[in-house]
Amino acid sequence: MNNTSPLQKKRLEYKPSIPEILKDLKNAHFKTIKGTQPHESLKKLFPKTFDQPTHQLVQRGAGGLPPTRSAFKTGVVFSGGQAAGGHNVIAALCDAGAKVIGFLGGPSGIVDNQWIEIDMEKVAPYRNQGGFDLLGSGRTKIETAEQLAASLKTVLEHKLDGLVIIGGDDSNTNAAVLAEYFLTKGCETRVIGVPKTIDGDLQSADIEISFGFDSACKTYAEIIGNIARDALSAKKYYHFIKLMGRSASHIALDCALATHPNLTLIGEEGKGLHKIVNEIADLICHRYEVGKEYGVILVPEGLIEFMPEMKALIKDPTAAENQAFFKTLPEKIQNQLTMDKDPHGNVQVSKIETEQLLMDLVKKELKKRDFKGKLNAQEHFLGYEGRACMPSNFDANYCYALGLLAALAVREGLTGVICSVQNLKKPPREWQLKAVPIVQLMHLEIRLGKEKPVIKKVLVDIKGESFVYFSHFRKSWEIEDHYRYPGPIQFFGDPELTDSLSLSLMV
Amino acid sequence: MNNTSPLQKKRLEYKPSIPEILKDLKNAHFKTIKGTQPHESLKKLFPKTFDQPTHQLVQRGAGGLPPTRSAFKTGVVFSGGQAAGGHNVIAALCDAGAKVIGFLGGPSGIVDNQWIEIDMEKVAPYRNQGGFDLLGSGRTKIETAEQLAASLKTVLEHKLDGLVIIGGDDSNTNAAVLAEYFLTKGCETRVIGVPKTIDGDLQSADIEISFGFDSACKTYAEIIGNIARDALSAKKYYHFIKLMGRSASHIALDCALATHPNLTLIGEEGKGLHKIVNEIADLICHRYEVGKEYGVILVPEGLIEFMPEMKALIKDPTAAENQAFFKTLPEKIQNQLTMDKDPHGNVQVSKIETEQLLMDLVKKELKKRDFKGKLNAQEHFLGYEGRACMPSNFDANYCYALGLLAALAVREGLTGVICSVQNLKKPPREWQLKAVPIVQLMHLEIRLGKEKPVIKKVLVDIKGESFVYFSHFRKSWEIEDHYRYPGPIQFFGDPELTDSLSLSLMV
Repeated sequence: MNNTSPLQKKRLEYKPSIPEILKDLKNAHFKTIKGTQPHESLKKLFPKTFDQPTHQLVQRGAGGLPPTRSAFKTGVVFSGGQAAGGHNVIAALCDAGAKVIGFLGGPSGIVDNQWIEIDMEKVAPYRNQGGFDLLGSGRTKIETAEQLAASLKTVLEHKLDGLVIIGGDDSNTNAAVLAEYFLTKGCETRVIGVPKTIDGDLQSADIEISFGFDSACKTYAEIIGNIARDALSAKKYYHFIKLMGRSASHIALDCALATHPNLTLIGEEGKGLHKIVNEIADLICHRYEVGKEYGVILVPEGLIEFMPEMKALIKDPTAAENQAFFKTLPEKIQNQLTMDKDPHGNVQVSKIETEQLLMDLVKKELKKRDFKGKLNAQEHFLGYEGRACMPSNFDANYCYALGLLAALAVREGLTGVICSVQNLKKPPREWQLKAVPIVQLMHLEIRLGKEKPVIKKVLVDIKGESFVYFSHFRKSWEIEDHYRYPGPIQFFGDPELTDSLSLSLMV
Repeated sequence: MNNTSPLQKKRLEYKPSIPEILKDLKNAHFKTIKGTQPHESLKKLFPKTFDQPTHQLVQRGAGGLPPTRSAFKTGVVFSGGQAAGGHNVIAALCDAGAKVIGFLGGPSGIVDNQWIEIDMEKVAPYRNQGGFDLLGSGRTKIETAEQLAASLKTVLEHKLDGLVIIGGDDSNTNAAVLAEYFLTKGCETRVIGVPKTIDGDLQSADIEISFGFDSACKTYAEIIGNIARDALSAKKYYHFIKLMGRSASHIALDCALATHPNLTLIGEEGKGLHKIVNEIADLICHRYEVGKEYGVILVPEGLIEFMPEMKALIKDPTAAENQAFFKTLPEKIQNQLTMDKDPHGNVQVSKIETEQLLMDLVKKELKKRDFKGKLNAQEHFLGYEGRACMPSNFDANYCYALGLLAALAVREGLTGVICSVQNLKKPPREWQLKAVPIVQLMHLEIRLGKEKPVIKKVLVDIKGESFVYFSHFRKSWEIEDHYRYPGPIQFFGDPELTDSLSLSLMV
């Protein structure tokens, strides 16, 4: 039996569209430009990489310098959760002429020196395919002195010119730390970050979006659209759909623009628990009044983290008003708050079953209101369904450009930089490429009493264009049903279907 | 904001491929052929519709009779759960020249005379779209004398030449009953059934598959493929994926052929609960031995109904051996078995949380075996995610052909027949069309002490080609990972991608 589907095969043949500048890699080089000034406080932690400029990729003029190296070797690693398109970063490294080794199972593969060689033949079946299965992934951070030393040993043993770290905020912080550490130790290995995460929370002046967000949102939106159409046809269920995305509500917001659910909760609005419960109860009552006992409600995974009462409770559980709030919670949630603490004694907000909490309280509220209708609820959680999907054309193109850019950054000896592709709303040929010092994205945070450099997660900006656009329309989606059905991602045919960018990025 | 997605719009333009014979409706007519002999026992219940032949659609020869009617009016109704393509049945009725009224909210719309007129303009935005939202649907059966009389009144009031019932086994049984009843009352309204259900359990010598099965399986397979790729990348979760499909495991079998999970349970194999638990535990242990703590397991919704110990327990709960089995079950399941009974005192097997039951027992079994690894399980239930998806080209074409055929059956005055399109593995131009007396699909069953005519659900045939093919390969999928990634349904491009039929039908 053939283990490769017809679509997998067809996608192997896809040739990513690339920016003009990347069509002639030999003549591409970096010129330095002014970037964002990093926080001064970071200077002491990054003395060697702090002061470097931003690098823009440009065509080498007639008198320009030739490439720094003709042959170069780079390591590459996937870090953290899957995002569609990651394999194309690696394919591009190979296509750019790098000798590539891949570290296995995430950053621990660097520490433990677990690796495979990746050549053209090895990468061939992974082109334009989802997942991170060529190498696997993992969440180890390279932090301790031992881990750093082991990593140094690994890159020296392999005589790597570069190490490309494909990851989110933490992994790119880690890339900056490694870059600085290698320089301190006189090691020539360059460290390059590639912005990956479906959550969409890794953004900056130079990073418009991380790869994987587009494909994940489109896959979730396909499913939400299907569920909405089912709701409208069967007219008997309320579908509560929780969406992955950690703290930020970017995915929920994007899916809302794509599918027009009756209610979309956005954590960043900072609404209190009981306000949210009342909003849901209001929705259900108002829809009941017009004869509707069904609906679709989107709930971002991180919702609870933004609730003021919840934050207060976690900060000071014994204060009278926080105790009063605690007592309004269902017993199961009370137990979770009391019992499920992390090793540092912090409440594990992410483990609280948000949708269960909302459901319980909404039912209670409806009872209080003497609601005469029915509430048949169906719960869904969309996460693993879309992280490792086949990359959309956008993510396939974007990742391929990121990979070529990373290869050039290694070739030209840049380090502690993250790959930046801009002008993403435009066709790939118009994209602009830069290598941006990761320190520009960072600041210092006090964590467990210690100063730590971090890339701050970018949350939904409730004054930003996408949210404002959404908030302009959402009222009209509440009672009348204006569900929108995006359908499955298309790879062939009209570019409007195949090459469009997910909606929250297009607003 | 535009409430219609670009793909929705593009799909509106799709022109279904149709069989040769349907390209000239004026010259199509039915010739009678020999069909399956219905069960003699049904004669007393269906005296007027029992003896009719099967009708095959053929080209009218030079001397053939002209169409029975030039103008005709038909009602149409959706019955039961959503299935992709239903709207195309209605579009075809309109395109065939019928004046169409649609009954709202399922068969109760006939009883209560709730309807809307459907003209070209009304149906236009629903062409090639998923869901049943043009009319809604419902599960009311038209059974009592009052309901039958009310239905008669409705069809007489509207002077309907036909009534097209789009539904599964129960709804088509209902169509046969209504056809017979109308004839008995001297009513000229013809009743035509259209085979619909994602479950794939409505099959016969003449019905190769119901519509909606193909699209639902492809959508579930897309999602399962994504989850499998995630499992293989993250290497830390066992994904237990429960699949809709009522009793039969057709959907699970089809998705298994499309995605090659490590284990697929098929209810019809009739394995006992503890045998299944041991199989899962074996899988987990064997994979652990080769360093794998992840996997994908498909669980059909109806699994539990086939377990011999469960059947025995339900039949005779007090027998000693059944009590012994009962005591091996987790407390929660014991309670479900004891408490959740239907109005007739029967255990509601469908309400038992199969995946929870399996998980609990597998964990217990692993503990007993002193398993050293981890079992991080993620549960999924795929149902509403695919019932109302956009129809695949196959379902769009199939439904359109079914609709044209239903219109011709009304025009030519057939009744008590179900629309049959055969040769479905071939391109639509080669499809064969028949109108088959529904009695040919039926038999008598004793339900609550009364003889009832029913269409028996067709289960997975474990001697059939699809299952044999599956069972030949499944062992090889257990330890080595041969996951197959079907990806999203494609509507444009290579016909191998856009026009293929789901795999269990192609074997």
